Amino acid sequence: MRAVDLIEKKRDGGELTPAEIRWLVQGYVAGRIPDYQMAAFLMAVYFRGMSEAETVALTQSMVESGERMDLSAIPGVKVDKHSTGGVGDTVTLVLVPLMAASGLVMAKLSGRALGHTGGTIDKFESIPGVRTELSLGEIVEQAKRVGAVIADHTAELVPADRLLYELRDVTGTVPSLPLIAASVLSKKIAGGADAIVLDVKCGDGAFMRTLPEARRLAETLVRVGNRLGKKFAALVTAMDQPLGRMAGNALEVRQAIEVLRGEGPKDLREVVLALGAELLVLVGEASSPKEGQEKLARLLDEGKAFAKFRELVAAQGGDVRAVEEPERLPRAAQVVEVLAPQSGYVQALRARAIGLACGLLGAGREVKGQRIDPAAGVELLAKVGDAVERGQPLARLHVGRPDHLPEARKMVEEAFVIGATPPAPSPLILDRIV
Amino acid sequence: MRAVDLIEKKRDGGELTPAEIRWLVQGYVAGRIPDYQMAAFLMAVYFRGMSEAETVALTQSMVESGERMDLSAIPGVKVDKHSTGGVGDTVTLVLVPLMAASGLVMAKLSGRALGHTGGTIDKFESIPGVRTELSLGEIVEQAKRVGAVIADHTAELVPADRLLYELRDVTGTVPSLPLIAASVLSKKIAGGADAIVLDVKCGDGAFMRTLPEARRLAETLVRVGNRLGKKFAALVTAMDQPLGRMAGNALEVRQAIEVLRGEGPKDLREVVLALGAELLVLVGEASSPKEGQEKLARLLDEGKAFAKFRELVAAQGGDVRAVEEPERLPRAAQVVEVLAPQSGYVQALRARAIGLACGLLGAGREVKGQRIDPAAGVELLAKVGDAVERGQPLARLHVGRPDHLPEARKMVEEAFVIGATPPAPSPLILDRIV
Repeated sequence: MRAVDLIEKKRDGGELTPAEIRWLVQGYVAGRIPDYQMAAFLMAVYFRGMSEAETVALTQSMVESGERMDLSAIPGVKVDKHSTGGVGDTVTLVLVPLMAASGLVMAKLSGRALGHTGGTIDKFESIPGVRTELSLGEIVEQAKRVGAVIADHTAELVPADRLLYELRDVTGTVPSLPLIAASVLSKKIAGGADAIVLDVKCGDGAFMRTLPEARRLAETLVRVGNRLGKKFAALVTAMDQPLGRMAGNALEVRQAIEVLRGEGPKDLREVVLALGAELLVLVGEASSPKEGQEKLARLLDEGKAFAKFRELVAAQGGDVRAVEEPERLPRAAQVVEVLAPQSGYVQALRARAIGLACGLLGAGREVKGQRIDPAAGVELLAKVGDAVERGQPLARLHVGRPDHLPEARKMVEEAFVIGATPPAPSPLILDRIV
Repeated sequence: MRAVDLIEKKRDGGELTPAEIRWLVQGYVAGRIPDYQMAAFLMAVYFRGMSEAETVALTQSMVESGERMDLSAIPGVKVDKHSTGGVGDTVTLVLVPLMAASGLVMAKLSGRALGHTGGTIDKFESIPGVRTELSLGEIVEQAKRVGAVIADHTAELVPADRLLYELRDVTGTVPSLPLIAASVLSKKIAGGADAIVLDVKCGDGAFMRTLPEARRLAETLVRVGNRLGKKFAALVTAMDQPLGRMAGNALEVRQAIEVLRGEGPKDLREVVLALGAELLVLVGEASSPKEGQEKLARLLDEGKAFAKFRELVAAQGGDVRAVEEPERLPRAAQVVEVLAPQSGYVQALRARAIGLACGLLGAGREVKGQRIDPAAGVELLAKVGDAVERGQPLARLHVGRPDHLPEARKMVEEAFVIGATPPAPSPLILDRIV
């Protein structure tokens, strides 16, 4: 087999066999196939796409490139979740203890991804003392004992995904449906869970801007995922405005704690319950999403999810007092208000701009290894549909790096679109694919 | 500027500015832009194409990557020619001395390209003693003195083309119209001629299989070439069956000598005269292609072109006796005939198969630096339209490497399509673009 022949086959619209795809992935991970041939192949995939069979084979080959997390020694049903990413996406911090409280096991591997706001790992680490770099052995042990883990991706799982993602990032080949699907699914398959729910975000602040795009990704993920022998379900959820009222790291932990206590923003609670209910349905613990949501809502309202969160934080070395008294979480030295420039109704609140502003304030990282400020971020005091008066505070900026404050302030101010009439209400859960 | 942004711009169908293209080419040649980003860019160009302005900028940037041949010290008009390559394409060996005999200067840089048959340099070197590795100074001196040179590409001219071609070859990005055009034109512009004729081959034995494809390439070459400030014309010529009756290295030299003496196969003579006449018209030495052809035909028939060829061979250290007595050229120890399996008319003679057979017999090279056998090749005793009797010899195989002889023999036999009726005659010159 020659790499150039496979590149040309894909370039000309042909369908690669599973053996051909495995040969490419293995050869690339082993260093036999150079970056430049893989880059050309990925760009050909960008233009030609991949069949479902090809995507299955790509995912499988990527899973085979490293170790798999073996959760079989843990009694009970293991579940997992993946989000395509948005602004204020605090869901994981709530869902992991909630599912554990319901009796399932959820060992979530997350990232410290580049971006305007940190990844789940960055958020979780804003709780003083929390340690996320766990070995596979530690993860399994904690999953067995507590039922809940939030740990950093380990390098041993799916090395092909790390290599391919780094290459895609610098060659303009990130936004390809089959490549995104194989990246997401390979990590979930290697993660060892029995059932997985996918949150495909859609809108201004998400990777997928339109509903048809988001739906196509969700369908591909569920179809390919099911062919790989696991139970998958997906929700397409709105990400035009940020989820909840916080974007940042410690700020999102504070918000997660509110939801875990049965309080907090309604939209975040709604997405958490909807995703959790899909998992309950997938594993047979609820006969319908509605029944699942009611069951999980009780766990939030009765404090059981919050108790499990305390247990999770303690298990990973975190300071439980900071969870019980969230004012102990990192706080910004400077907090600046953004005021409404006119009266009216908030008709839109651009999630992408809020995310960018978070980055400018110090909540994200532009290059690998950069230190983030856990206290930095944006607190939203008004959201879409709210009536506001001129001069009323719309948001609070929690300033980590003051050098970009004027820019961040302008960005947040412009993220609010204020008009004379209230906008038509729009749903949060846009589609359900099972 | 970031390479990934330019990759994405092209991927999304945008038009790059001349400054952006120059930055990419310069960065790649300097090693600042890695192979994998250039490979992704080239694949995006494969799918999205390039505007004429982009192709002009790419060609210019490639020319600027190295030295240009400065022929300005040579009195008279300098001409050049390029062929996209075919089987039995002996044109250059005839055209260079012919144009010199007509009073123009033709310093032709050629390749030792990979392929089933050798490049022009390999053919020319099958004359004992001929030296083709000339310095730029030697080329200019000989062009001034003799009016004719056939020399190996020097590394100093268009290093960007060498680097890009090597990358395209292993990344499935060779067959892209703007990339082909920039490669061809950059070398011709750097070659320093005033007027250039292009022979775009079309058919089974050529890179361009269909007339629309070949015509599109020819048009692009002439349009972009003219925008680069040189005079260009192109002919699209048929390459369904090999040109002439010889394919190989010394065999093609023998055939070139026949044509230079006013003899030889009619089709080869016709293509030589047509291309030469376009050059005469371009530089104002003929008022029409017809007048140019008549002028050049006289130079062949009166022996003036052959005299110039002897001078050319002598100037490059070759043994002139081998030109006067071609039996002194390298000869294969073994010659095998292929017989007609049935009577009828030759309806097709597949050029690609004849080329492949040449390679099997030892006339080409599969990897860089491989030694070729100058005597190896295929001599065609019948061509399309000829009536043949069962058992009559169709071709002679001049065997360099006997190990693949059975395969080569089968290939040549199957290259002849023999049927009951004579085929409709088809033209040799398919289109003219000026």
